[in-house]
Amino acid sequence: MGISMKEDCIFCKLANGIIPTKSIYEDDDFKIIMDASPATRGHALIVPKEHNENIYDLPDGTAEKVFKLARDQAARIKETLGADGFNIVQNNGEIAGQTVFHFHMHLIPRYKDDGQLLGWKHGLVSEADIDKAYEKLKG
Amino acid sequence: MGISMKEDCIFCKLANGIIPTKSIYEDDDFKIIMDASPATRGHALIVPKEHNENIYDLPDGTAEKVFKLARDQAARIKETLGADGFNIVQNNGEIAGQTVFHFHMHLIPRYKDDGQLLGWKHGLVSEADIDKAYEKLKG
Repeated sequence: MGISMKEDCIFCKLANGIIPTKSIYEDDDFKIIMDASPATRGHALIVPKEHNENIYDLPDGTAEKVFKLARDQAARIKETLGADGFNIVQNNGEIAGQTVFHFHMHLIPRYKDDGQLLGWKHGLVSEADIDKAYEKLKG
Repeated sequence: MGISMKEDCIFCKLANGIIPTKSIYEDDDFKIIMDASPATRGHALIVPKEHNENIYDLPDGTAEKVFKLARDQAARIKETLGADGFNIVQNNGEIAGQTVFHFHMHLIPRYKDDGQLLGWKHGLVSEADIDKAYEKLKG
């Protein structure tokens, strides 16, 4: 059974070996490649071979496998590079920082000296707004 | 079979209903609660009922279920609150911004007007350092 790719999608081409890239892992469903503009040493991307734009329409099988793979590879990268911590980040939509519209998951090893900031500003959301969102979401 | 909890772990207590909290979803394995210091309106946390400190020692079943749950709930939160995008973030270790040492996954809806910055600084890692990490990781 062939992989479902999207024409002109760079990550389809990288994940399926049509364009060569620095790959650190591969199986039937995924390739893990070095991020070309990394946050830290060893920052890598899990890229499914099948094209899905984002998390919302990810098939069950991919969703089940991808985080187990993230776990195994985070442990391996941490051990191999001597990292002190790890961020897993998965962005959906331009407003969320997604720049390639083929689902991918960032594996970002963290080091005491990495000078990196990954986090968010606090105090932007009022208690009233938290409660309003809660009322809508609690169902 | 009882859930494996850790004494004095606040997330064990919240996920298992020992301390009441604003919960928007619950099943046998997980509770989803409103983040008390949210990045954006609707920022929620997937908290497994079983205690595991971080991603490295997450059991297979939890790893398989958690991202499928993230997918379903990201879609629901986006739809319910009219969000424009979504960040999924999972931090491991103090250096990576983990503040509660019970594995959890951030569900962060994004809005055009949210004033939030989630991302990382570019240009901190040289090409030589990318290649050095790649050589060690490609195995």
